[in-house]
Amino acid sequence: MLCAVAEEMELTDLEKLRAAIEAGDGSALLAAAGEIHYADLAHEYENYDDEERDFLLKTIGPELATDLIGELPWTLIEEALSHFKPAQLRIILGNLSDDDRVDIFQIVSQENQRRFFSLLGPHDEQLTRNLLKYDEDTAGGRMTTSIGRITADMTVKQAITVLRRDKDSAETLSRIFVVDEQGRLVGKVRLRDLAFHPWPTMIHDIMEDADERVLATTDQETAARILSKYDLIVLPVVDEFDHLLGVITYDDAMEILQEESTEDIEKLAAIGGEQSELSYLNTSVNSHFRRRVIWLVVLAFVSIFSGYVMFRFSEVLNQAFVLSLFLPMVVAAGGNSGGQAATMVIRAMSLGEVSAGMALRIAWKEIRTGLMLGATLGLAMGLFIYFLLPFIQSQSDITYARLAITVSGSLLLQVFSSTLLGALLPIGARAIRLDPAVVSSPSLASTVDVTGMLIYFTAAKFILTL
Amino acid sequence: MLCAVAEEMELTDLEKLRAAIEAGDGSALLAAAGEIHYADLAHEYENYDDEERDFLLKTIGPELATDLIGELPWTLIEEALSHFKPAQLRIILGNLSDDDRVDIFQIVSQENQRRFFSLLGPHDEQLTRNLLKYDEDTAGGRMTTSIGRITADMTVKQAITVLRRDKDSAETLSRIFVVDEQGRLVGKVRLRDLAFHPWPTMIHDIMEDADERVLATTDQETAARILSKYDLIVLPVVDEFDHLLGVITYDDAMEILQEESTEDIEKLAAIGGEQSELSYLNTSVNSHFRRRVIWLVVLAFVSIFSGYVMFRFSEVLNQAFVLSLFLPMVVAAGGNSGGQAATMVIRAMSLGEVSAGMALRIAWKEIRTGLMLGATLGLAMGLFIYFLLPFIQSQSDITYARLAITVSGSLLLQVFSSTLLGALLPIGARAIRLDPAVVSSPSLASTVDVTGMLIYFTAAKFILTL
Repeated sequence: MLCAVAEEMELTDLEKLRAAIEAGDGSALLAAAGEIHYADLAHEYENYDDEERDFLLKTIGPELATDLIGELPWTLIEEALSHFKPAQLRIILGNLSDDDRVDIFQIVSQENQRRFFSLLGPHDEQLTRNLLKYDEDTAGGRMTTSIGRITADMTVKQAITVLRRDKDSAETLSRIFVVDEQGRLVGKVRLRDLAFHPWPTMIHDIMEDADERVLATTDQETAARILSKYDLIVLPVVDEFDHLLGVITYDDAMEILQEESTEDIEKLAAIGGEQSELSYLNTSVNSHFRRRVIWLVVLAFVSIFSGYVMFRFSEVLNQAFVLSLFLPMVVAAGGNSGGQAATMVIRAMSLGEVSAGMALRIAWKEIRTGLMLGATLGLAMGLFIYFLLPFIQSQSDITYARLAITVSGSLLLQVFSSTLLGALLPIGARAIRLDPAVVSSPSLASTVDVTGMLIYFTAAKFILTL
Repeated sequence: MLCAVAEEMELTDLEKLRAAIEAGDGSALLAAAGEIHYADLAHEYENYDDEERDFLLKTIGPELATDLIGELPWTLIEEALSHFKPAQLRIILGNLSDDDRVDIFQIVSQENQRRFFSLLGPHDEQLTRNLLKYDEDTAGGRMTTSIGRITADMTVKQAITVLRRDKDSAETLSRIFVVDEQGRLVGKVRLRDLAFHPWPTMIHDIMEDADERVLATTDQETAARILSKYDLIVLPVVDEFDHLLGVITYDDAMEILQEESTEDIEKLAAIGGEQSELSYLNTSVNSHFRRRVIWLVVLAFVSIFSGYVMFRFSEVLNQAFVLSLFLPMVVAAGGNSGGQAATMVIRAMSLGEVSAGMALRIAWKEIRTGLMLGATLGLAMGLFIYFLLPFIQSQSDITYARLAITVSGSLLLQVFSSTLLGALLPIGARAIRLDPAVVSSPSLASTVDVTGMLIYFTAAKFILTL
């Protein structure tokens, strides 16, 4: 069962599943579903219609459905739960891990939330109410409370007894946390240290410091970056009195970082609104439309300023229409170089490499880079114009010197200023607590289009009068 | 020591470190370095000059330096190793985890590689030579071979004895793999299952299937996506005969996915070449320049085509120069909408959501989205022109109907065609095994700038003659 082979087999299992659903064959469906990982099953579920989903959910029953629901995009969960009767819902809600359960309570309607609470046991209800206090984008909102906890005055044997009791509910036992009698985090041990030390060993003799920890109110992205930076499997979450509340696990961190990367990428392309939890093809045309239209309309209106500059300088163009040959180039070079600089800086901010306080060092780096880029581009075009000269002079009586100075000079100025602007605008936005998303590559391009027009036409006007 | 406080303390520790280095105080340096996580130490190391690095490395000695070197960006590693004498190098190379060691052997000069091999013990040398066979971008190139291995015919007690022997070298014991007498992967157990089962239990009674596995030649990104999709802590790597070679761990996966996201982001902004391993500020101006200049020059030449179209249609502009008010808008709307569509599709390809075979479904989605976007933008501008009309008519004798149809019609056509092109070009590039990087947002914009000019001027020319 190599990977290639495994994938082939999965395809066949998925095909069996689809055939069973179409045939309405419950036992074939159960057999096929049993062979498929629930992450793949959730992916497949997206493609089914209402009736097929109902048949699938009811056939696999509440136990398997719990695993499936834990993997579904949140937009599909409430609907999926509506297929079940209260007795089955009670099983599903009880089986869910506490972090998945609280996510679901956060997204369902008020009415469903009340109904679901009434189906929970008293312990789960209390736990869920406590977790619901945290915003869903914080460490508290993402953590799981199912962890192994022991105290420092236990022996290894006592610790193993305690953990054995909890082993099925604990999400990970790779790290076991040591708390004091008030529940404050004092250290950690690894399961391997329990497994390989003699039973009478005291926990406080083998425990290590648990320095890395975050407050429950910490932003989830910050928590994920700490996990990633220090290669942690779990990161403890505490309250302001250091009480251990739960942990964020490595798989949550991976998910958070992927979401943030996708968000960065989309924002840079001027795609607005919330990321769809559905895959590209399963996202509706309406949703695609809504996320793109706002910026398109805004940017279209910004472009009128460029148009107005061009309109105002009509007499310059009329004087030597060959100037139009290089107008789009000067304009676009600003958007391209500015977009490169903005992308570099925005990514570096996301990765925690630069902050607003480093604006001067960033400016100094981009001033030099921008000058080198502008000079190279200006020089390349100056040379190119030399070869193009016979054609250009056949259309106009412009001299080489005038044209080359206009084009090369404005390219240098446009690339230099756009690079600097592209690097500094995101920093500035962050500094005044504005969403750096307004500095997407297209919005930057629309802005420097205006400066490009101004630079080019002003230069041309001045040089043509010489 | 809450996170906020911890960060503050870290700052102080870093400041102590800097002060110790400046004062040349070795014992203060050692004390400060002992308080700093080596991931932070590596980050700090980037900022030091040659002399400071030498002092730091020699003071902390080969043991601590091993941890530091494992976290350094690869461009700094060879230089860091040059500070040590052969006896110290022997310690460092021996202490490195096998995956870090092979990474280093991959990047150093031929001469250093020979020298480093001579410093390794026979077992480490053989292991490193074996691992060097795999390309660094594959699962084999990223895996570690330090894992817990047991056989199915052992008892839990025997297994614990075997693992106890290996516990310090094994990178993770969260998953322990079961192999047959030929070393073929047959299953896995969790350390918790060993810890909590009675000692006489047979391994084959508690082991689970290890279905998820990859070939050593699998691309590292594919391996990382499998880890992420199935929430695995480790993913076994096998050869074509199913022999267990090693594992990829969750922290490698996190790193690989972050690198790939950064690559996507940079490519979309037309930034070329290899990602710098150094942080943004520590990357040299020369390197920033080199990665951006190529595409800037290429795109500048592409823009000449736009200029040429504009030049060719000079008589249309001269007939009604108010048309220039809307020219940048029509042109930019294509780049913006095309860039949005391309970004969506490229990200979906990266996340494994769409493949070239889905081109028709993607086209159908984007045809509808593009029509809606184009119609909305066309309508908005048609209305806007109505309010702008007094000004426009004062400059020209153009009628509302003619102007509105020209602008709205070409916006519709330009947005629709650019959206479709933006979505299909990356798919097409992938299909013919071209690097989808050529479909960056700027290169797409430069292309649809030409079509935008053509559409707008052709429409204007036609409608003005009516």
